[in-house]
Amino acid sequence: MTTKADYGQHYLVDFRRCDPETLRFIGPTREIFVRAARESKATLVGENFHQFEPEGVSGVILIAESHLSVHTWPEDGFAAVDIFTCGEEMDAEVAITVLKAGFRAEETVVRVHTRGRLDEPESGGAIVG
Amino acid sequence: MTTKADYGQHYLVDFRRCDPETLRFIGPTREIFVRAARESKATLVGENFHQFEPEGVSGVILIAESHLSVHTWPEDGFAAVDIFTCGEEMDAEVAITVLKAGFRAEETVVRVHTRGRLDEPESGGAIVG
Repeated sequence: MTTKADYGQHYLVDFRRCDPETLRFIGPTREIFVRAARESKATLVGENFHQFEPEGVSGVILIAESHLSVHTWPEDGFAAVDIFTCGEEMDAEVAITVLKAGFRAEETVVRVHTRGRLDEPESGGAIVG
Repeated sequence: MTTKADYGQHYLVDFRRCDPETLRFIGPTREIFVRAARESKATLVGENFHQFEPEGVSGVILIAESHLSVHTWPEDGFAAVDIFTCGEEMDAEVAITVLKAGFRAEETVVRVHTRGRLDEPESGGAIVG
């Protein structure tokens, strides 16, 4: 078993120096997040969002290609996202671009892992904006 | 902004050579997954699971400490899990132990990232069992 070469790409993305207004409440955070999933050509199959008090959001969108998650710290202008995609159609880089613009992040750090491989060529931390 | 030292630990865990029966349908997969979350002392705040046809499961549990996700490939005996925790109480290693036993994984590969840090000391791939 476990005969496949890999099981897709897992992106861990830290968005820093974001506009806190985009990170406080489910409404704006979810809107940006759903747009990112759609524009990346993901197929949405489920979602769950949680509002923290007094502010801050956790959310996940399940997609046919795996998932996207977000956790926000508006007090720090920080959002931690992960995007796991095992589909050919979906373009995670598009999702990252949409999120960066939506959160107005001044700095974005992306790390990529190939899942299911032992001899994994990993990317290091990369500041892409 | 972004003054904190870090925003928690993000575990990417590949379970190989699992018992495929534990990975085909939401029922068994979710039961193992919820147990792992509870025994690790996570605080569950939401969940969403999706059944693929003819088999295979995607699922996420939102927790006060962030999230756990699972995606299964029963045909390969493979499950890709990620556990993101930014709480002091929760013990992700306990969750990994419960999942390993529940899925009857013969091989487990764990990678850990500290989120939100630029000078991140990363663990490499580590076979822990």
